[in-house]
Amino acid sequence: MLNVTDSKGISLYIDDEPFSLPEVSLQLYQRTLDMQAGTLDRQVLLETSSGKRVLIESQRLVSFEHRHLAAFSYQVTILNAAAPVVISSEITGAQKNQAGIEDPRQAKGFDKEVLVPQGHVCDQQRLFLGHQTHNSGMTLACGIDHQFKTECPYEWHAECSENEGRVEFRVDAKPGQPIQLIKFAAYHTSPSAPAKKLFTRARWTLDRAKKDGFKTLLESQRRYMDNFWQHSDVKIDANSEEKQTETGEFQQALRWNLFQILQASARAEGTSIPAKGLMGQTYEGHYFWDTEIYVLPFITYSNPRIARNLLRFRHSMLDIARQRARELNQKGALFPWRTINGEEASANYVAGTAQYHINADIMYALRKYVEVTDDKSLLFNEGVEMLVETARFWFDIGFFSKRNGCQFCIHGVTGPDEYTTVVNNNTFTNLMARENLRYAAQTVSEMEQHHPEHFATLVHRTKLQMSEVADWKEAAERMYIPFDQNLDINPQDDNFLEREVWDIKATPRDHFPLLLSYHPLVIYRHQVIKQADVVLAMFLLGKDFSKEQKKHNFDYYDPLTTGDSSLSACIQAIIAAEIDDMEKAVKYARYAVLMDLADIGGNVKVGCHIASMGGCMDGCGIRLCRNA
Amino acid sequence: MLNVTDSKGISLYIDDEPFSLPEVSLQLYQRTLDMQAGTLDRQVLLETSSGKRVLIESQRLVSFEHRHLAAFSYQVTILNAAAPVVISSEITGAQKNQAGIEDPRQAKGFDKEVLVPQGHVCDQQRLFLGHQTHNSGMTLACGIDHQFKTECPYEWHAECSENEGRVEFRVDAKPGQPIQLIKFAAYHTSPSAPAKKLFTRARWTLDRAKKDGFKTLLESQRRYMDNFWQHSDVKIDANSEEKQTETGEFQQALRWNLFQILQASARAEGTSIPAKGLMGQTYEGHYFWDTEIYVLPFITYSNPRIARNLLRFRHSMLDIARQRARELNQKGALFPWRTINGEEASANYVAGTAQYHINADIMYALRKYVEVTDDKSLLFNEGVEMLVETARFWFDIGFFSKRNGCQFCIHGVTGPDEYTTVVNNNTFTNLMARENLRYAAQTVSEMEQHHPEHFATLVHRTKLQMSEVADWKEAAERMYIPFDQNLDINPQDDNFLEREVWDIKATPRDHFPLLLSYHPLVIYRHQVIKQADVVLAMFLLGKDFSKEQKKHNFDYYDPLTTGDSSLSACIQAIIAAEIDDMEKAVKYARYAVLMDLADIGGNVKVGCHIASMGGCMDGCGIRLCRNA
Repeated sequence: MLNVTDSKGISLYIDDEPFSLPEVSLQLYQRTLDMQAGTLDRQVLLETSSGKRVLIESQRLVSFEHRHLAAFSYQVTILNAAAPVVISSEITGAQKNQAGIEDPRQAKGFDKEVLVPQGHVCDQQRLFLGHQTHNSGMTLACGIDHQFKTECPYEWHAECSENEGRVEFRVDAKPGQPIQLIKFAAYHTSPSAPAKKLFTRARWTLDRAKKDGFKTLLESQRRYMDNFWQHSDVKIDANSEEKQTETGEFQQALRWNLFQILQASARAEGTSIPAKGLMGQTYEGHYFWDTEIYVLPFITYSNPRIARNLLRFRHSMLDIARQRARELNQKGALFPWRTINGEEASANYVAGTAQYHINADIMYALRKYVEVTDDKSLLFNEGVEMLVETARFWFDIGFFSKRNGCQFCIHGVTGPDEYTTVVNNNTFTNLMARENLRYAAQTVSEMEQHHPEHFATLVHRTKLQMSEVADWKEAAERMYIPFDQNLDINPQDDNFLEREVWDIKATPRDHFPLLLSYHPLVIYRHQVIKQADVVLAMFLLGKDFSKEQKKHNFDYYDPLTTGDSSLSACIQAIIAAEIDDMEKAVKYARYAVLMDLADIGGNVKVGCHIASMGGCMDGCGIRLCRNA
Repeated sequence: MLNVTDSKGISLYIDDEPFSLPEVSLQLYQRTLDMQAGTLDRQVLLETSSGKRVLIESQRLVSFEHRHLAAFSYQVTILNAAAPVVISSEITGAQKNQAGIEDPRQAKGFDKEVLVPQGHVCDQQRLFLGHQTHNSGMTLACGIDHQFKTECPYEWHAECSENEGRVEFRVDAKPGQPIQLIKFAAYHTSPSAPAKKLFTRARWTLDRAKKDGFKTLLESQRRYMDNFWQHSDVKIDANSEEKQTETGEFQQALRWNLFQILQASARAEGTSIPAKGLMGQTYEGHYFWDTEIYVLPFITYSNPRIARNLLRFRHSMLDIARQRARELNQKGALFPWRTINGEEASANYVAGTAQYHINADIMYALRKYVEVTDDKSLLFNEGVEMLVETARFWFDIGFFSKRNGCQFCIHGVTGPDEYTTVVNNNTFTNLMARENLRYAAQTVSEMEQHHPEHFATLVHRTKLQMSEVADWKEAAERMYIPFDQNLDINPQDDNFLEREVWDIKATPRDHFPLLLSYHPLVIYRHQVIKQADVVLAMFLLGKDFSKEQKKHNFDYYDPLTTGDSSLSACIQAIIAAEIDDMEKAVKYARYAVLMDLADIGGNVKVGCHIASMGGCMDGCGIRLCRNA
């Protein structure tokens, strides 16, 4: 919710000239972020070109407690002189897009205005802007209001037009006399209510905030954070003295990651967690499997209410997922590979729609949540309906292959590794589909026997027949899992081992990530891996692999893995630790934990890697306590 | 060059009301087309609502002899009354696009004006319009001029603006007095010359045409056609009396197809033959492999000069093909799957760029041409340079697979059948690539030994090393050709037989073509074939298969083949005839030969299937003489 690079919103003029603070770099952000208070605090002493010394103290927060509110405290003191000072508090509606067409991961630009003005209000020091999104018609209202305090003489002036507004405080600053501005910002959105109706809600928010005051907001933010750290902190227990420095660095990074996960998930109420959290426009704010596989398991332990929200949010998309399955000529439901509103937003089916494993990923997260929380209510209401439709999808898309000993095969799929696409029998997918089918069958059977009312409702809603459940069981039992006797490994898919091996060592460093340097057809015909695939299956479904098998698989796939996806290192670290390869475990864990704080990927400026952060929590953080 | 549905260009008004002729339907087009004269002739007697009987006689031709000229003779006679008659001869520059976004085969629409006006001239009864294409900057000039003759009193009026012009002849028609308008149309294009400069060229064309007169044009058209039929006619020799009716129908259809091939190819000078010839905008006027595999072999026999043009046209694209290979991180050259100017125009690599077999297809046509014509000049100059670069491409893209007995494997390709994409070791591709590699090696060796000067030039141009030639030979000798011992067939690719079999019989008729009814991911994971693939290889490279092997393959693939591509039936007919399955041979031949004339596919309105017509000539036409 705090934007690393954004220092806009309040402008300062001294002697009628703009006076800028240094940009909030990542390093500065780290130093100014108070993770205990949940605020961004700066105190800087600067000198103007004419020798006037200026002390600026600012404190910013986006309230966790009040979901529509942000607040800023901004205090300027000219220490050694008198000077005309103007503090201009701004609001703007004309947001530009970070279009990055050269990189497929970046957001696409829009060719027209995204936010269409829907009215504005200027009421004393309180301003409102209303907007509506161009295509989807969602509405947005922002309002700001102010409390201003100084002993110096001043006057103020406000103005507002459809895309921007400004309240200026013009002060005759006296030496040593502080000038304090408190700014409250309220924001309300709606799928359809007119923006002007949202002005009313924003008014309530601003009235309450002004009445409570900034200090009360600070206190509630602090309380929230205290509670968060109490429930969610992950502590590294350094068991040897010489490791303590390194451990301290890890500890700091883990906490920073935790704070980012909190920001991305704290108000997931009727939404999910985008791939970059709320930081930046990369991946266009879309939700992927990242949420369910990388973030939700941790949240299930730390904040089960939010985990439940996320699963219910998926359930709210079930009808669209049913429709999507129809578009693909399949039964059941297929959740979208990337989405905001439930509709498939990936135009690229090769590394998009064909990643059917999204279905099983969501069901995996459901099972994990139910096992941890014992929340049968969610399972028997929303959960089981998703289980039935996803099981139907798997049974429809696969087939019992006569050529393959009547085993259940699933062809034409893309697994997690996007450097190998549209293959037959991706090991990860088949294993996860088996789990999905089994859990669906088991849940339905349990309901039939012990919860007849819920069962009746389910049958009514889904037209379920028990013969389907028998089918699912059979498909699960006969699920084909690729295995190569010679190498004693699970091939990533039926043809993976036949491909030509990519020479990673001979590939120049600046050719990574490969997806930006090579045509997909070149990448696809080689043994080269973007991210843990079989190795991820070994983490999620550890019970299905012996330690020896894990070691064989890891040793085969690790040299082929580029780590071009940020979803990889955290998982590689966990499995490396499991097979006692501690050198690699620490190497990958370091990479994963420090990815954003040390900007290892060089791209934190376009947003944090929330899934990687979650993946670290899933295992490597905890394991490091034991082994680091 | 004659547009089936277009009856525009001359409008008739009687009693100041528009008087329309019936649209030129396909049936009418057949009846009015004089294939011996190369003209479209109509004579219609109609009655106005007030009982005036009108005789209209028209004759149209697009000159084969004069490449920039079309001409129309248009005569109106009111038989039983006097009447005011206006004949308006029009020229227009605002062409609309036939956008068909629901069908991927149709042309995409443009979101802005395609032809930008570049000037117009009105000079007595002579009008000119100049235009330039919006993106590529190509220029176009059209001019019309007239000869008007009648005993009735008349006056005329001309006007022209940037996108349309009109010459009106206003006549006081007397009963039984003919009114005759001859209209000449000249069209000139250029990659870059200003449209106004083209007006000068159009003036020359119109001056010459008016001087020669319509009758001379008719005679030269007739001479051209006589010569064409003498060299290109394919006659069916019916050897039993009861077959003569059917044979007559076939004969008519074959001739009609020949005429269409002529129209599409006659002036292929610095261009190729688009998938739909010059009829309609489907496939956006692009050139595919259709030309080299389906049309060029016939033209090699009937008009080797045009065949040579087509091959030289490909050579003119070689530098762009080299560049394209670089974009794909490959050595050598890769010709575009679809193109107008040499650049790859397919955005869909799955059923586009991955059809690398285009390289081998062009080299196949080259070999065929050289073998028939013995044109070593083309081979040693343009041909061999393409051979070297395509051989380099194949050697670079494939690899000697240790897992597969060190045979040469080619992975990640799409063969002719677009219902199975991005596969390993497509039998067709590997066979054709082997031929490509062998022909390249053989040609280079021959030049080294017997044509040292040409060889020196080649080495200079391509930096060829003889070790490369050794590589090509080895790759060809060790080329892996999929074979299944159990079924005794060549699998279409490494995984084809493992796929689930599509139940074609259970698929409703209105679900064909499958590509419009099913998501590609569904089609791709099944054994179902859009068009002859292994079966096409058996035709092109018949020597590589025993008759028994052909029969096994045909019998396996035929029930899986939907014929959703118009490129399929002609080839299926040929192979069915070769394995003595005459019932199927006649069935497929009938389908292929009558495809457009009987509009079997129901889509002749968007253009003729030139490749299918050529495919019929390639074999089934000739074979039918023997067997029908």
